[in-house]
Amino acid sequence: MVQPKYHVFICTSCRINGQQKGYCFQQGSTSLVQAFMQEIEDRDLSGEVVLNNTGCFGICEKGPVVVVYPEGVWYKNVAQEDVGRIFDEHFEGGKPVKDLMI
Amino acid sequence: MVQPKYHVFICTSCRINGQQKGYCFQQGSTSLVQAFMQEIEDRDLSGEVVLNNTGCFGICEKGPVVVVYPEGVWYKNVAQEDVGRIFDEHFEGGKPVKDLMI
Repeated sequence: MVQPKYHVFICTSCRINGQQKGYCFQQGSTSLVQAFMQEIEDRDLSGEVVLNNTGCFGICEKGPVVVVYPEGVWYKNVAQEDVGRIFDEHFEGGKPVKDLMI
Repeated sequence: MVQPKYHVFICTSCRINGQQKGYCFQQGSTSLVQAFMQEIEDRDLSGEVVLNNTGCFGICEKGPVVVVYPEGVWYKNVAQEDVGRIFDEHFEGGKPVKDLMI
């Protein structure tokens, strides 16, 4: 199995009963997923940066929540305008964005 | 941020448009999530083993797919009867279950 360099998990509040409601979803995290996808495409990073949407991480008040493995970096209150910086500094620069970290 | 020892991601085929359909879901992966949750509770491992359901990992023919970080262990075709073994050997024994790995 080829491991992605960065595996990004974004809460879209999807529940196992099929409902999609919750704080991250209300804060527009599905658009955030699309912004990450677009950035992966624009920077030609597919394979290196892999993306999944998820159910709740249980820290809703910090949503939208984005978790990056294998490092285990947890980002809070991620907005669309933060996405470029996460790619510049973290995925391309190798240093997590400190002021967004939980 | 306190990191879980094992962060388990299980595909339940949830899409960002709210649909929940796809191979892992059809194969009963929502029941698989519940089996993992029950095992965490029974073994008193909450905090140590954290669980999230996800959207598609893109390798549907190997579903249900379960991914464990920070190690980056990918399990394929996981059935409910495999769950006890994953806890015994991997989460409590420290050794991933080789014959289930992708």
